[in-house]
Amino acid sequence: MQKQKLLINGERLKKELERFAEFGRTENNGVTRLSLSKEDCFARDYFRTCCEEIGLIVKVDDMGCMYATLEGSENRPPIVIGSHLDSVKKGGRFDGVLGVVAGLEVVRTLVENQIKPKTPITLVNFTNEEGARFEPSMMASGVLSGKFEKALMMKKSDSEGITFEEALKDIGYEGEVENRLNNASAFLEMHIEQGPILENEGLSIGIVECVVGMACYEIEITGESDHAGTTPMNMRKDALFAANNLITEIRKKLSILDQELVFTIGRVNVYPSIHTVIPNKVIFTLEARHKNPEIVSSVKDFIHGLPYLGLDEGCEIKITKLWERDTVWFEPEICRLLEQSAKTLGYSNKRMVSGAGHDAQFIASFVPSAMLFVPSINGKSHCEEERTTWEDCEKGVNVILDTVLALLAK
Amino acid sequence: MQKQKLLINGERLKKELERFAEFGRTENNGVTRLSLSKEDCFARDYFRTCCEEIGLIVKVDDMGCMYATLEGSENRPPIVIGSHLDSVKKGGRFDGVLGVVAGLEVVRTLVENQIKPKTPITLVNFTNEEGARFEPSMMASGVLSGKFEKALMMKKSDSEGITFEEALKDIGYEGEVENRLNNASAFLEMHIEQGPILENEGLSIGIVECVVGMACYEIEITGESDHAGTTPMNMRKDALFAANNLITEIRKKLSILDQELVFTIGRVNVYPSIHTVIPNKVIFTLEARHKNPEIVSSVKDFIHGLPYLGLDEGCEIKITKLWERDTVWFEPEICRLLEQSAKTLGYSNKRMVSGAGHDAQFIASFVPSAMLFVPSINGKSHCEEERTTWEDCEKGVNVILDTVLALLAK
Repeated sequence: MQKQKLLINGERLKKELERFAEFGRTENNGVTRLSLSKEDCFARDYFRTCCEEIGLIVKVDDMGCMYATLEGSENRPPIVIGSHLDSVKKGGRFDGVLGVVAGLEVVRTLVENQIKPKTPITLVNFTNEEGARFEPSMMASGVLSGKFEKALMMKKSDSEGITFEEALKDIGYEGEVENRLNNASAFLEMHIEQGPILENEGLSIGIVECVVGMACYEIEITGESDHAGTTPMNMRKDALFAANNLITEIRKKLSILDQELVFTIGRVNVYPSIHTVIPNKVIFTLEARHKNPEIVSSVKDFIHGLPYLGLDEGCEIKITKLWERDTVWFEPEICRLLEQSAKTLGYSNKRMVSGAGHDAQFIASFVPSAMLFVPSINGKSHCEEERTTWEDCEKGVNVILDTVLALLAK
Repeated sequence: MQKQKLLINGERLKKELERFAEFGRTENNGVTRLSLSKEDCFARDYFRTCCEEIGLIVKVDDMGCMYATLEGSENRPPIVIGSHLDSVKKGGRFDGVLGVVAGLEVVRTLVENQIKPKTPITLVNFTNEEGARFEPSMMASGVLSGKFEKALMMKKSDSEGITFEEALKDIGYEGEVENRLNNASAFLEMHIEQGPILENEGLSIGIVECVVGMACYEIEITGESDHAGTTPMNMRKDALFAANNLITEIRKKLSILDQELVFTIGRVNVYPSIHTVIPNKVIFTLEARHKNPEIVSSVKDFIHGLPYLGLDEGCEIKITKLWERDTVWFEPEICRLLEQSAKTLGYSNKRMVSGAGHDAQFIASFVPSAMLFVPSINGKSHCEEERTTWEDCEKGVNVILDTVLALLAK
């Protein structure tokens, strides 16, 4: 006879997600829970209470990251589960918090079933993933992984001039550097997809193989401002028309490069932007993302070649690389376990990539890591309309639980 | 023996233009002489003094327009010459003031040659042609011609909340309604071209046959904002890409409509304009100008048909007409006299249109009017680099003088 699979408590998970959604709840049922704000502090305190109630030991590191540990019977590096509790302004009820509450529900399930793990299990809440109050995003995981310098981050200030360091002290969440996550056997981050793919394909679970690499450029077209009424068409140096032609070329070329490539012209400014004046300048960003470094490389080559494409007569082009990042691949063995768990539980699933950045991409540099996605309704996130069905949330956490059990059995 | 042509004093003209350029002079040799400002007041006072010195009678109307009259030996409607003394912020030394100083130089030449005209000659300075401090532009000539309502204009306020009426009283230039220009035999406005055509064709004089008609629209494209990293290309509703395709279509179609058509997409705003977010809205203006009402009509038909062209999937379009104006034709007989004067004086010239608006287009509704253009170096105006050669200024004023003499001889 086959052994009954251990499952989480879906009702409790839903109740807890609804409880967290009260911290910074907005009029339209979203949340504003900026990092280290009063609302974030309330959520942190509540999370600490939940953890302590089931016997976890809660520690805080010097970046304000919270770690709640269920002790193991052996002194092994812990299995870490978590994400972040902060949100953007008028963000959603699932982004980040779902990964933290998932971990809590997994441990609650173990505890109530009196499963005493050999390996410790640590729940984590990474500080300031969103970067909505203090730039950059993924600040704490960036410091933990050595990507960002702590002293620099401490001085980052919000729109009111309050520094990260001051805010951290204000809410009483400045802990010790020795509490930092530094050695772990695995890190599992469950998150909403923030895109439409799973929903579109009717799937419940995404096993995330990587966070895709990207390159982001700023392109500046300079022409000449003249009077819209008095300058014949053939004597103009219209920066907007030049930019328009260029964007058409960019779309034409990048569209055929690879089906999975995404590229976006998101920030666009036209100058002087007066209806009776021919534009003399257009500045726009062009970013492109793909898991394959060769594709990203082709995009970069194409962008660097734009000046030689030939602009509209008399206009000039300047190209500045703003930044780029390489693809971060997650631990294949953990991906395999996640996929196996999803299959065993009978949940529809696929392997996919993450186009967005997450703490796991930094943590992966020193802990074997992987991510699991659940569907975002209409692909929406970072907005009050952000939703995931309770059913999909429950399925996702069951996959995490099953994978943790598999890791514990090793 | 052929009679020697009467000519103006080029040196005096240059000196006077340089004198006026001191009122509101900017660091880079332009002028900021906003309507009814202190600088405008100084220029007005100086103009009044110049006029009174040669025996002209200066009156001011209820819109602050100044009229300086050289009396005629007979009681006839006057020949009126003039333009405006106000400028845009960081504008040029010729726009407007040239037409006023031209009139002054013409009358000075008549007076010093003891020519006593049968018909009175009135120099005019129209208040607030630029609309740079108080919108709309051509405010006073608009009121004189019944296009704008005086009570409404009096309440227009500048960026500091000062109304037109208050500013008019502050500088002491609120005159009487009975002084308004209402009956005249001709109005001549000399102005810089503000475009590159005359310079490009190597000509000194433009006889302006009309101010071209125009139509101005606002076009709004709505798509959907999604995450730039997580949304596959085929699931996007990218308002920028939709707008880009539309602009390509607009250019393609309008470019072949007529060679003299000018069209401009000047004001462009993209929302939310964040590099990691797919734009959900693009709003841009499209204005087109042509002397032939049928061409303007074709443009309007095309714009109204844009919604049926087919946008990128999922995006929507909204079209709003902001305003339009019909072509204003100038008095053919005065145009003929201007052309004849230019030819007699041996100055290279052509008939042309004005793509920009001028006081003369409103005055033409009740006074037989015409305009004369002189070349703008590099087509520049409304900027500190605005220039016209002294030689071209002198030629233009000589044409005005010769035409006035021809009108007086009638």
